[in-house]
Amino acid sequence: MIAVDWGTSSFRAYRLAADGAILDACASPRGILTVTDGDFAAVLRAAVEPWLGTERLMLLGGMIGSRQGWREAPYVPCPAGEAEIRQAMIRLDFDWPGQTWLAPGLSTRAHGVPDVMRGEEVQILGALGDLGQGDGLVCLPGTHSKWARVSGGRIAGFETHMTGEAFAVLRQHSILGRLMPVPEAEADPDDRAFAEGLARAKTAGGLLHHLFGVRSLGLMDDLPAAALPAYLSGLLIGHELQATAAIPGPVYLIGNENLTRRYARALELTGRVAQPLAPDRAAAGLHLLAQGL
Amino acid sequence: MIAVDWGTSSFRAYRLAADGAILDACASPRGILTVTDGDFAAVLRAAVEPWLGTERLMLLGGMIGSRQGWREAPYVPCPAGEAEIRQAMIRLDFDWPGQTWLAPGLSTRAHGVPDVMRGEEVQILGALGDLGQGDGLVCLPGTHSKWARVSGGRIAGFETHMTGEAFAVLRQHSILGRLMPVPEAEADPDDRAFAEGLARAKTAGGLLHHLFGVRSLGLMDDLPAAALPAYLSGLLIGHELQATAAIPGPVYLIGNENLTRRYARALELTGRVAQPLAPDRAAAGLHLLAQGL
Repeated sequence: MIAVDWGTSSFRAYRLAADGAILDACASPRGILTVTDGDFAAVLRAAVEPWLGTERLMLLGGMIGSRQGWREAPYVPCPAGEAEIRQAMIRLDFDWPGQTWLAPGLSTRAHGVPDVMRGEEVQILGALGDLGQGDGLVCLPGTHSKWARVSGGRIAGFETHMTGEAFAVLRQHSILGRLMPVPEAEADPDDRAFAEGLARAKTAGGLLHHLFGVRSLGLMDDLPAAALPAYLSGLLIGHELQATAAIPGPVYLIGNENLTRRYARALELTGRVAQPLAPDRAAAGLHLLAQGL
Repeated sequence: MIAVDWGTSSFRAYRLAADGAILDACASPRGILTVTDGDFAAVLRAAVEPWLGTERLMLLGGMIGSRQGWREAPYVPCPAGEAEIRQAMIRLDFDWPGQTWLAPGLSTRAHGVPDVMRGEEVQILGALGDLGQGDGLVCLPGTHSKWARVSGGRIAGFETHMTGEAFAVLRQHSILGRLMPVPEAEADPDDRAFAEGLARAKTAGGLLHHLFGVRSLGLMDDLPAAALPAYLSGLLIGHELQATAAIPGPVYLIGNENLTRRYARALELTGRVAQPLAPDRAAAGLHLLAQGL
């Protein structure tokens, strides 16, 4: 089969054996935001053309199933596992001898407020085998970090934290960035400043006050300019961890190596157990969803 | 005397009688950021020229005393009142028959992290007469909201919250703004959505999670696009109020009418007492500081 993980800013495709082994893979920066003419079929064909002659099943997951994507596959409400997601997949028109399916995202609701994910649920399904008994708290750090509670192999609920995007917009567009070096000129992240930001997040005052501290620490020469980005990162990740601290047990991490290492360190510094998993589970998750199609 | 309140984005000058009554006033958008050639003297002279013949004392307060201003007047550490601030004022060279003084800002330190203000301390001194016994919690809402504890007529300490700037950068530069109407097209703020944002801030989850809710509430049609800015405003102000809730008693508000009304409503909705004061106390504060010069 062909498995396609198509997100906002990236495109990844895999040719998989019947047992899920990856036979071929390709990646490009053709995320859905770059497909401004809406001709997703053409982008897909150009990428997977060599595989269309031999395969007969293709499954697409991620933001490609959103309102901004090829077609909207409505969110499936949690709790949801493999079966519920598979049942909500929709057929796409794509001219080849095989079948083309689009996977939906998930929604949940807590305190009357909805939350949504698209793509991360595929990664979580792909990682189920690594969670003991199929239970656990899974964190996918990133622009919009996802924290999912997995129970009996199904996603019981989840929370999104805007940590990565908050870091980026505060650094690029707020007064906090003015004292910082430009990202290109940045040296290795300052581990001590990161830990100080984490520790700060545990004190009273609230995030909006702690953020201004990034500026005043720089202004009063308590921290050198080069340390401020790491301090801000520690502060934001620290607030994310504070907000997710109520759930006991290890935190399974899925993400790129740098970010996973940073979150693992943050979890350990705040007294929790981090369990990093292999970085990319999209192919495994899509393979699981394709069973029985 | 001449009192000048010179901030980042605005310039205000007053001619005051011996008792502090305002005889003349002028204002312009020549904040210090617009004086790119550093010739602050020329901008000042152009504004207050007509008064230079009769007056003999001028006092400048606000960001004009910062590193980006005319000259840096080092921060005075809290606790600090009229006497400590007056003692730290510095003489400026300005060619006229009178004396020209520059007022310093204040610094404080809590949990090992510094905080700073420049200009707000002048407003607070100007409002002292309205605080019973010279004690109370004063809030100056804005881009960087200041919360100052006043005790015995002196500023004991304070906290800055980046509430207004966070609202602006999240709306203009993050994914949250994409579902919102452009600011120019905005109708009256939606009071109900504002109250919902405030209420949300009292629930668990943390600000970074609550922020993503602004998007998902819009995506899932729980809130119309036009209500999202007010909801975001309520959310941010709600988190600011949560973080400052430990100090009992009324909150004295100094700020422009719109913002003061919004904060007063937020305080009342969260069960606190708001005490709005007259909006601009800079002239009164500078007049107080000039006594005995």
